[in-house]
Amino acid sequence: MKTSALQVERAAYQPKLPKALQGAVKVQEGAPTQSVDDQEEIQKLFPHTYGMPLVEFVPGEHTESKRLNVGVILSGGQAPGGHNVISGLFDAVKKLNPENQLYGFLMGPGGLVEHHYVEITKDFLDPYRNTGGFDMIGSGRTKLEKEEQFEKGLEILKKLDIKALVIIGGDDSNTNACVLAEYYAAKEYGIQVIGCPKTIDGDLKNEQIETSFGFDTATKTYAELIGNIERDCNSARKYWHFIKVMGRSASHIALECALQTQPNICLISEEIQEKDQTLNEIVENIASVVAHRAHEGNNFGVVVIPEGLIEFIPAIGRLIGELNDLLAAHGADYKDLDKDAQRKYILEHLSEANRSTFETLPEDVARQLSLDRDPHGNVQVSLIETEKLLSNMVAAKLEQWKKEKKYDGKFSPLHHFFGYEGRCAAPSNFDADYCYALGTSAVQLIANGKTGYMAIVKNTTSCTDEWKAGGVPITMMMNMERRNGEMKPVIRKALVDLNGKPFKTLVEHREEWAKKTCYIYPGPIQYWGPSKVCDQTTKTLSLERE
Amino acid sequence: MKTSALQVERAAYQPKLPKALQGAVKVQEGAPTQSVDDQEEIQKLFPHTYGMPLVEFVPGEHTESKRLNVGVILSGGQAPGGHNVISGLFDAVKKLNPENQLYGFLMGPGGLVEHHYVEITKDFLDPYRNTGGFDMIGSGRTKLEKEEQFEKGLEILKKLDIKALVIIGGDDSNTNACVLAEYYAAKEYGIQVIGCPKTIDGDLKNEQIETSFGFDTATKTYAELIGNIERDCNSARKYWHFIKVMGRSASHIALECALQTQPNICLISEEIQEKDQTLNEIVENIASVVAHRAHEGNNFGVVVIPEGLIEFIPAIGRLIGELNDLLAAHGADYKDLDKDAQRKYILEHLSEANRSTFETLPEDVARQLSLDRDPHGNVQVSLIETEKLLSNMVAAKLEQWKKEKKYDGKFSPLHHFFGYEGRCAAPSNFDADYCYALGTSAVQLIANGKTGYMAIVKNTTSCTDEWKAGGVPITMMMNMERRNGEMKPVIRKALVDLNGKPFKTLVEHREEWAKKTCYIYPGPIQYWGPSKVCDQTTKTLSLERE
Repeated sequence: MKTSALQVERAAYQPKLPKALQGAVKVQEGAPTQSVDDQEEIQKLFPHTYGMPLVEFVPGEHTESKRLNVGVILSGGQAPGGHNVISGLFDAVKKLNPENQLYGFLMGPGGLVEHHYVEITKDFLDPYRNTGGFDMIGSGRTKLEKEEQFEKGLEILKKLDIKALVIIGGDDSNTNACVLAEYYAAKEYGIQVIGCPKTIDGDLKNEQIETSFGFDTATKTYAELIGNIERDCNSARKYWHFIKVMGRSASHIALECALQTQPNICLISEEIQEKDQTLNEIVENIASVVAHRAHEGNNFGVVVIPEGLIEFIPAIGRLIGELNDLLAAHGADYKDLDKDAQRKYILEHLSEANRSTFETLPEDVARQLSLDRDPHGNVQVSLIETEKLLSNMVAAKLEQWKKEKKYDGKFSPLHHFFGYEGRCAAPSNFDADYCYALGTSAVQLIANGKTGYMAIVKNTTSCTDEWKAGGVPITMMMNMERRNGEMKPVIRKALVDLNGKPFKTLVEHREEWAKKTCYIYPGPIQYWGPSKVCDQTTKTLSLERE
Repeated sequence: MKTSALQVERAAYQPKLPKALQGAVKVQEGAPTQSVDDQEEIQKLFPHTYGMPLVEFVPGEHTESKRLNVGVILSGGQAPGGHNVISGLFDAVKKLNPENQLYGFLMGPGGLVEHHYVEITKDFLDPYRNTGGFDMIGSGRTKLEKEEQFEKGLEILKKLDIKALVIIGGDDSNTNACVLAEYYAAKEYGIQVIGCPKTIDGDLKNEQIETSFGFDTATKTYAELIGNIERDCNSARKYWHFIKVMGRSASHIALECALQTQPNICLISEEIQEKDQTLNEIVENIASVVAHRAHEGNNFGVVVIPEGLIEFIPAIGRLIGELNDLLAAHGADYKDLDKDAQRKYILEHLSEANRSTFETLPEDVARQLSLDRDPHGNVQVSLIETEKLLSNMVAAKLEQWKKEKKYDGKFSPLHHFFGYEGRCAAPSNFDADYCYALGTSAVQLIANGKTGYMAIVKNTTSCTDEWKAGGVPITMMMNMERRNGEMKPVIRKALVDLNGKPFKTLVEHREEWAKKTCYIYPGPIQYWGPSKVCDQTTKTLSLERE
């Protein structure tokens, strides 16, 4: 296999572990926990995995080496560092007992159900250390939620003598990990299930989870690109760049990129929802900044847009909610209709208020909203070209203002969407270390008999030595939410906190950033060189933990 | 000014100079030169700047310090390293005599004509050392070609006591630099004009110019992104990514990125023209690879597309040629027509063959071809969404093959266009050094009384010490070409050489890359760390100089 010079040199990097995980480990248990909401319902649904204590690892004494095989699954979208979680798992299970085996199920949860797997050996693993991507064993979006799947999975787990399964995924996948843990516990199958907090979107965080892995690397990659575009923008001085960034519902990625690069405008979906803004108000706000800058001779700028925006505009959000239920209920027959018939079908079935919203949307956007849910029943927001929708509407508004003599500038928009560029970037030093520690923690949870836990690492703005590792019961993070038209127990998604420091920092500066040109150019991730460059934490994490 | 950690640390980098430029310098002149073609006409047009010798700098003895002021202009699209050319100029003019002054004309050649300028002092310059972008003095696309402009420029040059002007630009801008040099020489105004080879496109190269600055950094930035997408593609295994990359007419950027990342398909415009391929043949070739991979269960892949492609498909190229002339001749009255009237106008005025090509194109593509020439009369190819055009046509072809039972896979395309992300990236070590040396060379050409020269640095695949610096008469690189409907003297654009090693290397491997998955993930540019990572030259340059 031919690899790049960076991969060759980076393979030699030894991720740093927190002190508590460097040697033998002892478990320190906290008090019993409660779910964040709907305690009664969650407890009823998870009788065997509810109320367990928080766990922290502290240095302990060497005990007998434990014999156990472990399975691992990568679930959902890629995030930088996934391979390092697996490296951490591998090194830790082998340290427990060199005869222990680690198996990877292929192409996501489907690999467990369909019995596609590979044994992860040293030779197999080594080329993937400190690399991006999930290509070592692949990932997938099969939802693990049916008993039939759990039983099929059990067959192969038994065959391979696997005592514990580690599921590396986002909020939905960890919810499913917990359902599986509960099922295996209820059936007394003797199989533990442990989750790991993965997602570039940054929306899997709470009191216990400081950040999900991949967020650091992905946002640095997007910030590199946004910074480069800002520099281009400020050199050519003739374009408005509308840049949409991934992140699904939450605006964490947009916010973090804005804090790193200081664009003229950064929309935050959560704020738009809170203020009950209409699409027209959003467009007017952007157009005002464009007009203000034009008045000062600056016919250029940069707008950062979170991909989930459209769902958070309340009128459109209500429409999407009804469409989700409608498509979940009528999905099958609807699917075979042609484009026009689908539109007609939707218009006939929508409530009056939502129908009128649907009718006012540009036809292609309306169509995008009524297509292809992901397996969790969510709109695939990354396919909606919000950046073009907004710039078209801003152009129309400016045209109108020009006629009214309120604006006299030039508006040339360019569009970008960044997502796939960052999901598989080679992990930053932070993500390389963090993931390796998560993998190591997961093995310690297993060795200590835990199930229904997520591996965690805290105190991550201190030096690695001082990081704290442990586990959190997944049920502790759950509440009941409506999905696919049904109430379900799910891990509460962390949206941008409008009272949090990261958002407040944006608010504090955004008027200045809009009017002046305060761009910052972070440049590409550095793996070697001055620590100030290589070991920067995200602005979000450092502001949150200040 | 708040800057990033990378900028702070990178500011301390001292670019390395070739041995010959480290101390006092002596000029070594070669034999008189000839233009690459149309010698008689070029000589007639450039009587004062034709036939001059090649120049090389060698270590010399210290001479009296020379008093002179210099002006500098950034012309055209941004390229990483422009600020370092200016740093090189500054340090070298100050070394000649600390009283010498360097002036920057603002926002491109227009700054000279309109007398917008700034004195570049140490304090002004220092924050821009080793940074990307042209924002220090801005850039622009005003064409410097009329006597009236030359005379307006002269006024300010005289006022500031500027003896020499350095124009940093691509092939068109350097052509204009030579026209200006010739004009000032003919008028005996005593003002020298020196060019510098700038363009990320890589098409300003020949026997004397090994590479244009910015190509190294820009291609590394695009290759980082393509590599990241390949890794994502190979992890998710369900998308075909169609990635268009900048580069205008020439396919150097696409080719270099392909050599760095080994995608499944990389189209080379020059080959398509040479083989006289139709759009349908190109689409069939791509669809065949998709079908072949699908047959092996691989419904994913990456296609790299040069932005100039469409001009090189012979039938479309002929159409564009006629449109260029038509728009140049009838531009003014045509411009005020509405969309439909413009289409009608074009259909009425085109020759029969080209009309039928025009009519077969999707309407939006046809419209893009008939809009907005740049100031040099070229189609703005970056605005044509070739990546979507191709993937739509591939989808249609596969649909047809599916009906004919020749194909049974899934085809989900995603689209990307990379250009603005790389033009202002912080220069790699190579570009930082190369540009600094070019600036230093330019000053030596000035100090030695040269005009109508371009600064050059050769032997660039050796270590910096061994680089050779000098100058090449711009007329030596010229021939006559049709522009805006007229024959003009221009620097011959270097397209991809189908007999050159870089293209041959692609040809040698592309079948394997198409069928197997041989992706390479170069990762982001590194400024510190192992030399194998930080000081990699482009594949193009190292293959060409093997």
